[in-house]
Amino acid sequence: MFGLKLPEVRPGDNLAELIVGAAEDAGVGVRDRDVIVVASKIVSKARGLLYRVDRVSPSREACKVAGKAGLDPRFVELVLRESDEVVAAVPMLRLVREGLVRMDRLFSGEEAWRLLEEYPTMLVTVRNGGVWSDSGLDSSNHPPGTFSYPPRNPDEEARKLSEAIRELTGRRVAVVISDTEIFLRGSIDVARGSYGVPPVDRGFGRPDRYGKPKYGGVDCVADELAAAAALLMKQTGEGVPVVVVRGLSYDWSDEGISQYRIVDVGDLARILVATVKHTARVLGVFRALKNVLKLAFMFLVS
Amino acid sequence: MFGLKLPEVRPGDNLAELIVGAAEDAGVGVRDRDVIVVASKIVSKARGLLYRVDRVSPSREACKVAGKAGLDPRFVELVLRESDEVVAAVPMLRLVREGLVRMDRLFSGEEAWRLLEEYPTMLVTVRNGGVWSDSGLDSSNHPPGTFSYPPRNPDEEARKLSEAIRELTGRRVAVVISDTEIFLRGSIDVARGSYGVPPVDRGFGRPDRYGKPKYGGVDCVADELAAAAALLMKQTGEGVPVVVVRGLSYDWSDEGISQYRIVDVGDLARILVATVKHTARVLGVFRALKNVLKLAFMFLVS
Repeated sequence: MFGLKLPEVRPGDNLAELIVGAAEDAGVGVRDRDVIVVASKIVSKARGLLYRVDRVSPSREACKVAGKAGLDPRFVELVLRESDEVVAAVPMLRLVREGLVRMDRLFSGEEAWRLLEEYPTMLVTVRNGGVWSDSGLDSSNHPPGTFSYPPRNPDEEARKLSEAIRELTGRRVAVVISDTEIFLRGSIDVARGSYGVPPVDRGFGRPDRYGKPKYGGVDCVADELAAAAALLMKQTGEGVPVVVVRGLSYDWSDEGISQYRIVDVGDLARILVATVKHTARVLGVFRALKNVLKLAFMFLVS
Repeated sequence: MFGLKLPEVRPGDNLAELIVGAAEDAGVGVRDRDVIVVASKIVSKARGLLYRVDRVSPSREACKVAGKAGLDPRFVELVLRESDEVVAAVPMLRLVREGLVRMDRLFSGEEAWRLLEEYPTMLVTVRNGGVWSDSGLDSSNHPPGTFSYPPRNPDEEARKLSEAIRELTGRRVAVVISDTEIFLRGSIDVARGSYGVPPVDRGFGRPDRYGKPKYGGVDCVADELAAAAALLMKQTGEGVPVVVVRGLSYDWSDEGISQYRIVDVGDLARILVATVKHTARVLGVFRALKNVLKLAFMFLVS
């Protein structure tokens, strides 16, 4: 794996040219079957997918939500504009203050508190059939007041970038567009879009070393590449938005990852209902209801 | 990164010796500050953390749960034994049949259906304060009827392995114990235990390129190493349970990852209640209740 430093990317820049140039400058070059992992943010920058918050007029709806959430109405307007639906408002600052979210494990200083006070609520939104916090809006590494938003079709962006690199160099490379998502322990980079690498290795039920069908074995290859690349994007400090992964053996795939979900967001409610019913049948109604009753009780007293 | 092939690991084997031997045979060796990623399963094998299902007498509770879940009572007995609490029974086979979980994206053949019919229900359990499917029991790459279970303190296993490798070679290496977890698109390897690498890069609130505090930046370094190693563990086929990661720059840390959660499982209910209340305040009671009402309706009619 090689991390590439790029100059500041601006709207209209040709990303393929910047990447190929950086790879040559680094003495790495581009070879057939390389996987190029690209931070989603520089795709947004090059495509001009940027909002300037001071140019935004918030709607009445945005003002209403912002007032109650403790957020800037112009920021909320952008979140609403980029989402299909807002499904929840998570009181981050309160959860941290009450110790329910242990931010002591994430903090690097007092700035972190100021940041939480500026964004005390995280809006959970649905966008292009996926779940996003704050619609994927991101102000990090942008000038103050500027937010980037992710492309609507990141697989298509990956494919276009692969083809542009092929035109420049004659080499056929896979492309993964990576972004950061938050999990229970912190953040891990995942693939937002991909082209070339198979998004998921469909190994469920494949025989194991003893010939028994294997439960599992459905590696998200594209996500693992994004996570691996993050080790260099972060370790080398800022300004490493591209990582070249060389020597990985994979079957070429034209399928992208962005619509690749085992579970559809719209089906989550039905899955939850089926699971609660089955739990009541298997563990008994009382045990299944215990947590529901606990929730109801907490709701009443807190 | 280098993948190492190991002979079949047996209870009582000295893992450090096997790993150092394999690294030397591969011409890779062991160097200071290498990160050695080890599949959890071979730690279980070496420590003898194995159950033989035909030696298990199921309790009455296990028989009752098994009958209703469509599972082998002896398997359920093991799940109960290895868990602190069973919290849900997910009707996997039914969800797949109804198309709510799209297994067409995971299948590699008809064997997969047989596997689902053998395990139609997935039991979600709490174990050592974390959430596990089927208490982490795993039969893949074991002889028929044998299940491994994860060590109770995987950070300690990582530390011991690092120290044993140091005694053998004089080299100080970090160790990550990796295992597979299922996400919305398939599975990704994550760190179950770690020693040496900092589990999480506490970058929340650190200044970005423009000097603004950054929302995010809390990379789970240990998890990213596990995900990266999975690319070689799986790509090279079976029998690559160890990956040596060389050249990564990191600050040494004695802290392990296994108890490293932002959110405690026991606090989840309180977080949920706080979020539902805040959502009702921010988005209005009707919109917040819409999904709850939808759930209640589906529960009644399905």
